[in-house]
Amino acid sequence: MSKTVPVGVSARHIHLTQEHIEVLFGEGYQLTEFKALSQPGQFAANETVAVVGSKGSFEKVRILGPARPATQLEISRTDSFAIGVKAPVRESGKIDGTPGVLLKGPAGEVQIEEGVIVAARHIHFHTSDAAKWGIKDQELLKVRLSGERGLVLENVIARVSDSFALDMHIDTDEANASGAATGDTAEIID
Amino acid sequence: MSKTVPVGVSARHIHLTQEHIEVLFGEGYQLTEFKALSQPGQFAANETVAVVGSKGSFEKVRILGPARPATQLEISRTDSFAIGVKAPVRESGKIDGTPGVLLKGPAGEVQIEEGVIVAARHIHFHTSDAAKWGIKDQELLKVRLSGERGLVLENVIARVSDSFALDMHIDTDEANASGAATGDTAEIID
Repeated sequence: MSKTVPVGVSARHIHLTQEHIEVLFGEGYQLTEFKALSQPGQFAANETVAVVGSKGSFEKVRILGPARPATQLEISRTDSFAIGVKAPVRESGKIDGTPGVLLKGPAGEVQIEEGVIVAARHIHFHTSDAAKWGIKDQELLKVRLSGERGLVLENVIARVSDSFALDMHIDTDEANASGAATGDTAEIID
Repeated sequence: MSKTVPVGVSARHIHLTQEHIEVLFGEGYQLTEFKALSQPGQFAANETVAVVGSKGSFEKVRILGPARPATQLEISRTDSFAIGVKAPVRESGKIDGTPGVLLKGPAGEVQIEEGVIVAARHIHFHTSDAAKWGIKDQELLKVRLSGERGLVLENVIARVSDSFALDMHIDTDEANASGAATGDTAEIID
């Protein structure tokens, strides 16, 4: 049985706490939806923030909603060199000991003390997909991306939940190294 | 027998004809050596040029010398999006049908009509290395880069010559996707 999954390429983006949203955009501010994402309930917001590192900045980093319990900026390793922030490869949510950065919005600024990561590549599995293929939460998978720049990614983290839709998330460095784009198909080979 | 090769990460760079060097830097100009590269006789020059695409530019792109029979700009896929030049993945020297770009130097400008590529990953083998491992020129290899972001690159082109030193060349996207850096070691697995 071939285990194929759709590929989603994540450009740099940020998740914000409601507290930080209000500092950056004003008291009581609510994010507004630009478009829905592949994971149920998640959306790209119309709002963006500026991110300022020691060597450079990004003027418009897309906010993904809804608000979360912790603010987290996800950038590529290329981005980390560009702005001068030494972000480690981490699974989403595991931000202990990660660097911070300065965020600027139309209503104010926040210097976050941690939360900048290079997101570890991962696949979201609905519980039923994982059961069908015998894949466990947190299992490390090998996944082939085919084509001219074909490659096999190792250490792809399986994330299994009833609230997930089947989708593999890679960042722009991984997409550019492999020539992959959102909507392509990857194959789990081990 | 383990087939291990040193890794060299190529940042964006340009090779120029002597004619273009003289348009950009002045009549009779000769490139000056900043440092030697891994391949015998090749060097990074002190000189840089500006490269201007439809969506952006790079102010200082390193010139690699000596002068070549054809001008060739090598950028990453990330770079190609940044400056708005649709560079295909090509082996060095195979520039037919590739896009051009505007080059600016201290003494003048050149609009090249072709020559912008994303360099296909490859390994330089001295003839003796290739013979020892049974590898033929133009063979496509699979190569593992280990570590947290470990992966196996497919379609790595073998280039064999008496004038080459053993070295695997990947671009910054491939380096950032794999976490590899110049001086790391890769293993040919097939």
